Amino acid sequence: MDCIFCKIIAGKIPCDKVYENDEVIAFLDIAPISRGHALVAPKRHFQDLAVTPAETVSAMMRVLQLIAPAVLRVTHAPAFNVGINNGAAAGQVVPHTHFHLIPRTDGDGLKSWPHQRYGPGEGAALAKDIAAAVS
Amino acid sequence: MDCIFCKIIAGKIPCDKVYENDEVIAFLDIAPISRGHALVAPKRHFQDLAVTPAETVSAMMRVLQLIAPAVLRVTHAPAFNVGINNGAAAGQVVPHTHFHLIPRTDGDGLKSWPHQRYGPGEGAALAKDIAAAVS
Repeated sequence: MDCIFCKIIAGKIPCDKVYENDEVIAFLDIAPISRGHALVAPKRHFQDLAVTPAETVSAMMRVLQLIAPAVLRVTHAPAFNVGINNGAAAGQVVPHTHFHLIPRTDGDGLKSWPHQRYGPGEGAALAKDIAAAVS
Repeated sequence: MDCIFCKIIAGKIPCDKVYENDEVIAFLDIAPISRGHALVAPKRHFQDLAVTPAETVSAMMRVLQLIAPAVLRVTHAPAFNVGINNGAAAGQVVPHTHFHLIPRTDGDGLKSWPHQRYGPGEGAALAKDIAAAVS
């Protein structure tokens, strides 16, 4: 068991826990993007969202929805982002599936990523290809 | 019905659809962060994630997990981010709950937000306050 989150879940590494139930744990990110930045992870090990069973994902989302109001109330934040990084190229560092809950306030300086535009017909063609590839 | 996503769902505004079922629709963001950037939204109107029923969130996540491999295959992306913006201060523009699925590739130039550190004992105290506030 070389997974740091599995070690946290097993109590072998401490964490600043905010909630847990039979299936899911939530604790503060030690390197928060904003104050109260929490992680929600299943107790069973799955590498990333892509391979996490739907019922486990649902259990994670239920915990996220449960703790979000508490996180916002305590941090006095009016809003939050949820982030899931699936794969190294998406910034996933710990290969144990988890959701980021990031409290947000006006003027906190966190910038959204830049947007682009498709050329004429490009989006329609791409959507058609993706729709055809959905199994 | 003044909601742009409700109008898309009703077929009154076109979209580049990649998938739909009885409960959920997925279509390309017209201003993509990366090629293939898709949105997953419930057909029923809910303002944001905080007020979306857990069963609807689960249905959205099932569709996200279904379409993600197709999006990655077609866009030749090895990874993806999921983003949920809950509230204006978190960048939510359309007040109809939705998930962003953003394909990612190495060197795509999208930077993760900067991380901070808690002072000694600060994280533990914060976690305790949040845990106590979880209803």
